[in-house]
Amino acid sequence: MESVKSQTYEVHIGELAQAALNQHIAKKNYSKIFVLVDTNTKKHCLPAFKKMFSAPIDSIFEIEPGEENKHIHTCLQVWEFLSNFDGDRKSLLINLGGGVLTDLGGFVASTFKRGIDFINIPTTLLSMVDASIGGKNGVDLGALKNQIGVINQPQMVLVFPEFLKTLEPRQVTSGYAEMLKHGLIRDAAYWVDLKEKNNFSEASNIQRSIAIKNDVVLIDPTEKGLRKILNFGHTLGHAIESYCLENPNKKTLLHGEAIAIGMILEGYISHELKGLPKLSLEEIKETFLKYFEKVDFSKDDIDAILKLLKYDKKNSHGDINFVLLQSIGDAVTDIKVAEELFQKAFDYYGE
Amino acid sequence: MESVKSQTYEVHIGELAQAALNQHIAKKNYSKIFVLVDTNTKKHCLPAFKKMFSAPIDSIFEIEPGEENKHIHTCLQVWEFLSNFDGDRKSLLINLGGGVLTDLGGFVASTFKRGIDFINIPTTLLSMVDASIGGKNGVDLGALKNQIGVINQPQMVLVFPEFLKTLEPRQVTSGYAEMLKHGLIRDAAYWVDLKEKNNFSEASNIQRSIAIKNDVVLIDPTEKGLRKILNFGHTLGHAIESYCLENPNKKTLLHGEAIAIGMILEGYISHELKGLPKLSLEEIKETFLKYFEKVDFSKDDIDAILKLLKYDKKNSHGDINFVLLQSIGDAVTDIKVAEELFQKAFDYYGE
Repeated sequence: MESVKSQTYEVHIGELAQAALNQHIAKKNYSKIFVLVDTNTKKHCLPAFKKMFSAPIDSIFEIEPGEENKHIHTCLQVWEFLSNFDGDRKSLLINLGGGVLTDLGGFVASTFKRGIDFINIPTTLLSMVDASIGGKNGVDLGALKNQIGVINQPQMVLVFPEFLKTLEPRQVTSGYAEMLKHGLIRDAAYWVDLKEKNNFSEASNIQRSIAIKNDVVLIDPTEKGLRKILNFGHTLGHAIESYCLENPNKKTLLHGEAIAIGMILEGYISHELKGLPKLSLEEIKETFLKYFEKVDFSKDDIDAILKLLKYDKKNSHGDINFVLLQSIGDAVTDIKVAEELFQKAFDYYGE
Repeated sequence: MESVKSQTYEVHIGELAQAALNQHIAKKNYSKIFVLVDTNTKKHCLPAFKKMFSAPIDSIFEIEPGEENKHIHTCLQVWEFLSNFDGDRKSLLINLGGGVLTDLGGFVASTFKRGIDFINIPTTLLSMVDASIGGKNGVDLGALKNQIGVINQPQMVLVFPEFLKTLEPRQVTSGYAEMLKHGLIRDAAYWVDLKEKNNFSEASNIQRSIAIKNDVVLIDPTEKGLRKILNFGHTLGHAIESYCLENPNKKTLLHGEAIAIGMILEGYISHELKGLPKLSLEEIKETFLKYFEKVDFSKDDIDAILKLLKYDKKNSHGDINFVLLQSIGDAVTDIKVAEELFQKAFDYYGE
């Protein structure tokens, strides 16, 4: 499998990844090598990782999994661990886990002693194709997602598709949403391929998604323009995800589950405002509902979700900016949307 | 007073600073302007600042002063404040305070929504000539100083020497240590000028110190080489400062007070290892003891301080690297020092 080159780091997939990792470690003279895992990856991925990794690991730290632990208090535990085990500026942190873990571990490494090297080894489909690529890292502030963080690139990202076999099916399916998004915003043929062949977990598709994201990030690393298209489905999706996370009466949604809903809603708005054809909209709704069960939202739910919207980090001056589709494969950014359309979008989703 | 140009921001001193600030605000279209103060600067500096600032301030947040509040928990309060008052990516944070406040405020701004603009307005001599320049920011982890942070430059640094009149004399004197350090590491004539004329608080000297620090930082922003000379006196000085802060039986030292001791100790080591002339060493000791009262250290104190040394963020691979002087005005970096010299250095300090 071909490696994907970023400006400052490389993404290696499959058999190349192990060699790239061991070469990197041999070249760099790290003072200490730390590995961050969560309860799941410690059990299901760490043993395989240890077998393929030729250097000695100095210390392993385990955090609790899940978005509810993606907070500064968990960072504090990891910073203290690194400090207690004599981590210094020449130490390396290897993040072995899903998006929550690579986001949090990347932030901890970027801020420990003003920045140490880190390597991301994503273990979920979602983090392989999205979270671990692009250098965004950080943690949540209360129910507000990714409010605290920096943009800082890892030394390398290593993708081992065999880790997907350790996941529950719901976790794998969650990753489909970001992959389908890559098709929707940038590559109509890829969208068609994915939904027709239904072969998301194949290395070639993981590689295709990474290449799309990486291409966008290289053109606009700090999200001044093009990179915003990656937020399609995320403006409403994030608000839905936050709302379900903090509301004890709602089932917690995985990230992909929330943005799948977000993409149907923002697809509807795209149809209303940007001429996305009705047929394309229906294709989008039908595709996501094939993989993601419909969620019921009451009037009160919707009101609360819309309140959370205004805190979304992508907004400024209080306006709510959306990424919308003109057609499948062609996204536009910075579109302001009047509030009455949101309710209509939820109506369409619920139909 | 001439402004000092950095790569990405400018330092403006005195009458130019007010105009520069108001021009910057007029040019940028900030969505919100927040000001961070502490209990002291709210009382003594905020009224004067408001008079010279032509734009409306959206909201002001007050933190407790002092190194003991330079922790992630205080950051959390400021992040929550920014979030609660609808701060977004186009917001500005103005940090009005001493080194603790500009270090903490700079870190909060650099990590809020992955980085918003900030402006430092240092109100102590120490922060005017040191902390607010160079882009290092961050907070302490337990008793360990500056363990969490990033390097990120402010939009501008504004120095108003009249704020020095609001300080207690001990606070002003603390700043002398960093200014004398600038002479010791880089400019022998400046060292002589300062100690003979005793006119530290004059705008021309503040400007000279800033120019020395800025010159060093421009050559080596990420501290791979030359920038390390700024750590003269800090390796032992930081350990002494941390030890006194966490030990209820020791008087808490201001940063300048601690590094003044550190510079005498590291001056002694410079004499032993790098041929710093005995007369220069005695001149260094005499000068610092003129401004900074001698502190008593017991055998137990010294043992505990040396234990803290190994956590200093500048060390790697467990070695302890020092900046030493070959002569006044000429520093060398990355010198390893055998442990038995530390005790001798403390003996010399105590003589």
